[in-house]
Amino acid sequence: MTVEQKLADLGFTLPAPPQPLGSYTAVSEAGNLLFISGQVPLVNGKLVYTGRVGEQRTTEDGKHAAQLTALNVLAQIKRHLGGFERLHHIVRVEGHVSCIDGFYDQPAVLDAASELFAKALGEKAGHARSAFSHSQLPANATVILVVIAQIEPAR
Amino acid sequence: MTVEQKLADLGFTLPAPPQPLGSYTAVSEAGNLLFISGQVPLVNGKLVYTGRVGEQRTTEDGKHAAQLTALNVLAQIKRHLGGFERLHHIVRVEGHVSCIDGFYDQPAVLDAASELFAKALGEKAGHARSAFSHSQLPANATVILVVIAQIEPAR
Amino acid sequence: MTVEQKLADLGFTLPAPPQPLGSYTAVSEAGNLLFISGQVPLVNGKLVYTGRVGEQRTTEDGKHAAQLTALNVLAQIKRHLGGFERLHHIVRVEGHVSCIDGFYDQPAVLDAASELFAKALGEKAGHARSAFSHSQLPANATVILVVIAQIEPAR
Repeated sequence: MTVEQKLADLGFTLPAPPQPLGSYTAVSEAGNLLFISGQVPLVNGKLVYTGRVGEQRTTEDGKHAAQLTALNVLAQIKRHLGGFERLHHIVRVEGHVSCIDGFYDQPAVLDAASELFAKALGEKAGHARSAFSHSQLPANATVILVVIAQIEPAR
Repeated sequence: MTVEQKLADLGFTLPAPPQPLGSYTAVSEAGNLLFISGQVPLVNGKLVYTGRVGEQRTTEDGKHAAQLTALNVLAQIKRHLGGFERLHHIVRVEGHVSCIDGFYDQPAVLDAASELFAKALGEKAGHARSAFSHSQLPANATVILVVIAQIEPAR
Repeated sequence: MTVEQKLADLGFTLPAPPQPLGSYTAVSEAGNLLFISGQVPLVNGKLVYTGRVGEQRTTEDGKHAAQLTALNVLAQIKRHLGGFERLHHIVRVEGHVSCIDGFYDQPAVLDAASELFAKALGEKAGHARSAFSHSQLPANATVILVVIAQIEPAR
């Protein structure tokens, strides 16, 4: 089953990968590593989740934001590599959650992204993770994911 | 002298490496690099330092939190590599300190971790570093360290 | 035209690379990657921009701070590699902006750094980027840039 089919089974479709929000490239390659620019829950050029978990947003909103952001990560990888064959594995996920002071369950929000990677990518999903809390994020996004992946050499 | 002996001379013992706090792996390998998940000052599954430096915590508390966190980084490396022989060097330490507004001495707090690495690992400790200030961190931890290390190929 | 000449055309000169602010090295090498410690807008050992964009600092100040910080990144690369010949490309720029709540245009501030890299380095400048907002940064700096670069093997 392809990554796209697995996502469809979960009710997700891969979006068009978002354009960078400034003077940089969406994805940068260095040897066997792929560095993906910070992704936000953009769908069709529009930020679907803004604001803080615990205030304008619930934990469930945060989880959905994390899933939409993870889909953008996958879309960037797919565009850059022309598919998922050359993806070796997701190496690291850095997850940033906009939330109120006193909300400490960033891991629950980010698990929604990690679990989406696991279901879509299987063994290629295994990653180290770091979680951070912010009183706000650029563009007032609810979630940012910064991902590093390992890739196979081009043939 | 082994890393463990050097730590013992400083009054430290390597803890059992903490379990991930969510759906990810503690350590992820990519070629010659090791990406260690964000570590916090957990001892025996319990967070020893929570709260902000300058409020519930002193700078000295922050330094001790940084040391305990550094021990968890070393414990993760040891479990993943089966020892420190294959560790080439600590490449980068990203240090996050929970503190009040107006506390600017994150470098002093993080030096406690960098110096522990230096004493335990000698020449393998040399690393670039970045320091950040947060009004809170996940699980209300006082310190998070995110570490990248270079490793030697397995024999 | 050399990097230094291109910078001179823009009215910039490469500074002496700042000393680390703690017990770490300014730059750490791992295989084909160069990890540069977090840089701030230091000139001659003095922090030129402190405080928050939207409060003590304007967006224009933030952009200038980002440019001065980018110059320090280039100065660290030059000192470490002995020039820019062995620089393959800037792989990733992580940009942190100290600002008030409600200021969401971190990308505009960081574009000043990305565009300086583009003008000085040409094709070697292409990078992925992530942007973050902070209520304060260590030493009260207005901007921090954390950069990873790819390098060519030494001859």
